[in-house]
Amino acid sequence: MTGRKTTSPVTFPFPLQTILESKTKTVIIGHDAPFVMIGEKINPSGRKKLGAEMAEGNFERVKNDARAQVAAGAHMLDVNAGYPMGDEPAMLVQAVQIVQSLVDVPLCIDSSVYEALQAALAVYQGKPLVNSVTSEDERLEMILPLIKKYNAAVIGMANDETGISMDPEIRLSIAVKIVQRAADYGIPPENVVIDPLALTVAADPTAIQVTLETIRLIRQELGVNMMCGAGNTSFGLPNRAPLTASYLSMAMYAGLTSAITDAMNETIRAAVMASDVMLGHDAYAVNWIADFRAKQKAAATT
Amino acid sequence: MTGRKTTSPVTFPFPLQTILESKTKTVIIGHDAPFVMIGEKINPSGRKKLGAEMAEGNFERVKNDARAQVAAGAHMLDVNAGYPMGDEPAMLVQAVQIVQSLVDVPLCIDSSVYEALQAALAVYQGKPLVNSVTSEDERLEMILPLIKKYNAAVIGMANDETGISMDPEIRLSIAVKIVQRAADYGIPPENVVIDPLALTVAADPTAIQVTLETIRLIRQELGVNMMCGAGNTSFGLPNRAPLTASYLSMAMYAGLTSAITDAMNETIRAAVMASDVMLGHDAYAVNWIADFRAKQKAAATT
Repeated sequence: MTGRKTTSPVTFPFPLQTILESKTKTVIIGHDAPFVMIGEKINPSGRKKLGAEMAEGNFERVKNDARAQVAAGAHMLDVNAGYPMGDEPAMLVQAVQIVQSLVDVPLCIDSSVYEALQAALAVYQGKPLVNSVTSEDERLEMILPLIKKYNAAVIGMANDETGISMDPEIRLSIAVKIVQRAADYGIPPENVVIDPLALTVAADPTAIQVTLETIRLIRQELGVNMMCGAGNTSFGLPNRAPLTASYLSMAMYAGLTSAITDAMNETIRAAVMASDVMLGHDAYAVNWIADFRAKQKAAATT
Repeated sequence: MTGRKTTSPVTFPFPLQTILESKTKTVIIGHDAPFVMIGEKINPSGRKKLGAEMAEGNFERVKNDARAQVAAGAHMLDVNAGYPMGDEPAMLVQAVQIVQSLVDVPLCIDSSVYEALQAALAVYQGKPLVNSVTSEDERLEMILPLIKKYNAAVIGMANDETGISMDPEIRLSIAVKIVQRAADYGIPPENVVIDPLALTVAADPTAIQVTLETIRLIRQELGVNMMCGAGNTSFGLPNRAPLTASYLSMAMYAGLTSAITDAMNETIRAAVMASDVMLGHDAYAVNWIADFRAKQKAAATT
């Protein structure tokens, strides 16, 4: 199957809605909808203690992180169980089941290991987002049948075997390839969420300009939903929250519709909700005012 | 002179630099430069006490506001002396002279009264920004000769006798008219800073979309610098700072190069500095890191 090419252009003039589900709750990612924040905490990368605990079958920190992120306003949660010494498929299955038993938001099942994705998809209740597939033929041919089988949605990363291009047009062409290949497997474009890739601006002053232009192009040419790991943008810099927050405001204006981010950080959360107001995705600031009143009430009772 | 028309298109392919000066300091507003924050505080609108004090010749609050805004990081200061019971030309002259004697940033001389602008321009030391002229022929013919005489820069508001259009193309056409008419008076386009007009999103969910599209069009078609009153965007809503901050991040990405805003609000100030980092206007975050270190040092010594 390697080397198979699809050359027909794939464009969708209307904004697409990506529907994710938990057992009972539906979340919609879309260009006219409020931005979807996917809580980033349940991930052992950079959190060795969490990974060690999960490998030992101790999921207390996972439980606390799940509850706290949803309480803070995360619309979905990323769940990653990658740990060098761990049995990733078993850990991911356990994490998914525990989180689903505790909180009622759809999950983003996050692994680069095929067997882990397969096992987690088999037990997931609802329609998850799978994080992620890259554009290499081998990966697409491995992951996409799984996405189709479980009617999941998948994050497609705009990089390929040559790495991450700093040319927005090349990132767009990779996104087009992923969406086309998904279509070949019977996966509709609304079930593909492209990651335009955000690198840290600390290493390259043009990094975010490239990301923003990629988002704008994908929005205009493909119309699919997009998500990114927002924290990457400020990696290596001090006082990161306002940097990540300002990136998110700009990216939302350009067309980003969701992000894996720190939903518990008030600066980031406020920037996302405020940008929804400014872009008309929270008309008459209904959510903003409700959130303000809830905070006032909480402050008054403590 | 009324009804005079200039029909030749005026476009400037390269970003223009607007240079403002105090006695000894130069500030550049430009598309590749860090964003210019113009402190909004010295303005009796909505601050009756300040107006009453200024009318009585008491400028202590003006002095404090001038020092505090510059200390907080304002690159310029707006100075307005409009007060119903006051002698505006005399008050504006006094305010400009007192502020210039205390702080070393260029000023934005803010009045709708011709005599007040004339008197303040006569005493100003350096090259100020004049706030503002609208596109009515009568106003242009009154204000532009004054701008030319004092080699000042002027803010041109994108509204006309019919009011504020919600069509970005119409706002653009008004901006074009102001820039063309300025050219007729020998004022170069870099000395015209267009206000794309930002209304509150509380009254109309599309208000900011219109402003952002206006900014994008003016950036693309005219290339001139722009400024706006950022606080307008969140007027009437609770917890305004994150709303104004997210607007500024989006507007900077669209092409806004300066704003009259609350430079003393840390949320707004951080969003502006962070957006400069993200857009590559503070390469390698040199200003961001220096600011962080200065804050750490200040915290350590208190």
